[in-house]
Amino acid sequence: MKIAIMGFGVVGSGVGELLITNAKNIAKKAGDTIEVKYILDLRDFPDSEYKCFTKDFNDILNDPEVEAVIEAMGGTVPAYDFTKKLLLAGKHVVSSNKELVAKHGTELLQIAKEKSINYLFEASVGGGIPIIRPLISSLTGNDITGIVGILNGTTNYILTQMIKNGKSFAEALSEAQEKGYAEKDPTADVEGIDTCRKIAILASLAYGKNVNCEKIPTEGITKITTEDAKYAQAMGYSVKLVGQCVKAKKGVFARVCPAFIDLDSPLANISDVFNGILVQGESLGDVMFYGRGAGKLPTASAMVSDLVDVAKHRNTNIRILWNEADEDYLKDGKAQKYPYYLRFMGDADKLKGYKVTKLPGLDNEFAIITKAASEEELNELLKSEPFSNCEVLGKIRVI
Amino acid sequence: MKIAIMGFGVVGSGVGELLITNAKNIAKKAGDTIEVKYILDLRDFPDSEYKCFTKDFNDILNDPEVEAVIEAMGGTVPAYDFTKKLLLAGKHVVSSNKELVAKHGTELLQIAKEKSINYLFEASVGGGIPIIRPLISSLTGNDITGIVGILNGTTNYILTQMIKNGKSFAEALSEAQEKGYAEKDPTADVEGIDTCRKIAILASLAYGKNVNCEKIPTEGITKITTEDAKYAQAMGYSVKLVGQCVKAKKGVFARVCPAFIDLDSPLANISDVFNGILVQGESLGDVMFYGRGAGKLPTASAMVSDLVDVAKHRNTNIRILWNEADEDYLKDGKAQKYPYYLRFMGDADKLKGYKVTKLPGLDNEFAIITKAASEEELNELLKSEPFSNCEVLGKIRVI
Repeated sequence: MKIAIMGFGVVGSGVGELLITNAKNIAKKAGDTIEVKYILDLRDFPDSEYKCFTKDFNDILNDPEVEAVIEAMGGTVPAYDFTKKLLLAGKHVVSSNKELVAKHGTELLQIAKEKSINYLFEASVGGGIPIIRPLISSLTGNDITGIVGILNGTTNYILTQMIKNGKSFAEALSEAQEKGYAEKDPTADVEGIDTCRKIAILASLAYGKNVNCEKIPTEGITKITTEDAKYAQAMGYSVKLVGQCVKAKKGVFARVCPAFIDLDSPLANISDVFNGILVQGESLGDVMFYGRGAGKLPTASAMVSDLVDVAKHRNTNIRILWNEADEDYLKDGKAQKYPYYLRFMGDADKLKGYKVTKLPGLDNEFAIITKAASEEELNELLKSEPFSNCEVLGKIRVI
Repeated sequence: MKIAIMGFGVVGSGVGELLITNAKNIAKKAGDTIEVKYILDLRDFPDSEYKCFTKDFNDILNDPEVEAVIEAMGGTVPAYDFTKKLLLAGKHVVSSNKELVAKHGTELLQIAKEKSINYLFEASVGGGIPIIRPLISSLTGNDITGIVGILNGTTNYILTQMIKNGKSFAEALSEAQEKGYAEKDPTADVEGIDTCRKIAILASLAYGKNVNCEKIPTEGITKITTEDAKYAQAMGYSVKLVGQCVKAKKGVFARVCPAFIDLDSPLANISDVFNGILVQGESLGDVMFYGRGAGKLPTASAMVSDLVDVAKHRNTNIRILWNEADEDYLKDGKAQKYPYYLRFMGDADKLKGYKVTKLPGLDNEFAIITKAASEEELNELLKSEPFSNCEVLGKIRVI
């Protein structure tokens, strides 16, 4: 099977590397050898083992020998246009591009279905962790009630440093940047945008209807302080950035936000750059998938396994349900009732009926966990006595 | 699609239940409704919603309308004979029977391949945890270097009780029996036989060649004492019964034995009846799968998802590599070098170069962790000075 690679950055070159080093094993599993005929990149790679670089997308599009294409470009321009043209031309596409999949998955899967080919994207969520395929094939027996995912390694590394080593957000971020875990511009990670795209993909696949990533309430980790991390530890929780979806009667709730997670939950122990995805099934109970959520070879591995799947399904569309949804299908995750951790400036004397936590060295403040409430109910509560006189220093959902 | 269920015990009736309660969702994912035409069981179930019971296997075998069969009988007699006849007759078989799969997987998969049908057994390992399908389809990109699995919920429950609550093996076992987690005859669980079958299945699939479960060195948990559990905790480990396989140059090492697991490993936190399967990949790093490894509905869920896969691949064999292996393919897991925890009666004065752990209340004994050694080297060491004068009270591999 002849293929092309679009984008020869970290992930694309990782795929190239694996196709050479694991060639024999891959051919055995795929039932065919896989040969890279073109690599599309605007840069030059004179030292690469590969000598098939091109700067012209049409070389790939117009070559009938190319059956499948690895899309590791990232972003939607020109990846969207390229992917659509390739699928319309009857070429399978394997992608690691979460932004593209989240935003245009519905349309691109529809084209793949009509053309009896495949658009696969295991690498778009959880790096090398197999999560997409289990969601669409192994977890069919149960009605999935919800998914909670630690889906972004950068923010998990930062939060782990804040909790375990008492670092501030700024310190932990700059350390993550030094280690290459965070980009120079970390916005997409720390503001939760990356997590939002990933939970949108998982939610769309779990229930078969599109969850619009642009409409999911999304909050990052920039407001979390060292103090919040200390209270979390003292109160028996870990702090994680989670993407969450929960099945509703007619639709699905979704939200991205920091969360206090009970130390008994398997998610609480997912540290550093690792990802953990907890799938909650009615009959199945909790199933968790754990591993490195990013990195060159893990992500490339996921793409190669998709490629093997393509080789096994050259003339068949692997049934993936992801249809258009009605306007009101996505419900506001903020409307769901959860307890909240609240941290206040002031003194706790007037508070009746709450268990108050105070920490040594933080004399003028305290924290509580509320009863389950929606964000709206919580805001009402905060406007009422005795809270209306307290300044809110921190507010994090407890899940 | 018309199917039959063979064995209407816990798992078989669970499948029956899910096919009714989740009918709509299953039909959507399978692209067809699934109808139970026969249920084979020697017992009567007058109160069941199903009215299609038979005691004659030939009703199923000879009915051309039956396309797929759920085998939830357990054991190899008559399950082996029945399964073989069904596959030869061109009917797909979905099994939860780890003994049958471990012992006859090679042959049954070969028949399925020849007949262009499917023999699927996601439920045979890890209950509802998707592990078989990821192994054969998602993890192809990497060379799997090894698998370590906590594969038996009963023994994990017992060990958790011993470690966390200081119970003896006998107390914890009888509690597990009361709670329905352990059988009246717990031999297959506590002696590691169940774990052995499961790691044999995983190892056979990971490397595509049969790992003979009857030749894997297998040790259960009956020799582990409350004292061993106390030392483990004091030394920073958890104790787990693990099935392990490691890729060798020409073959695979396999072993089932209790193990000290560092508390930093994600496996150390798998408690109670939960299972955890850690797959180590060269490019992928560690990926772990976690969930309930047994139980009616989790296991039934896995069978239903296999059934959905069958419905999607009615005329295609899903490529699963599991070939015959040479005699010397399976290597003795005992020959691999690991550190060992050793507990001795006596006093530790003569020991030089070892970090000795002593526990309050256990005055006449002590424990150490050795350097990495094979079992043979370890036995040599124990025969030499100063160990030859110490009585060995406990010996557990550290992984």
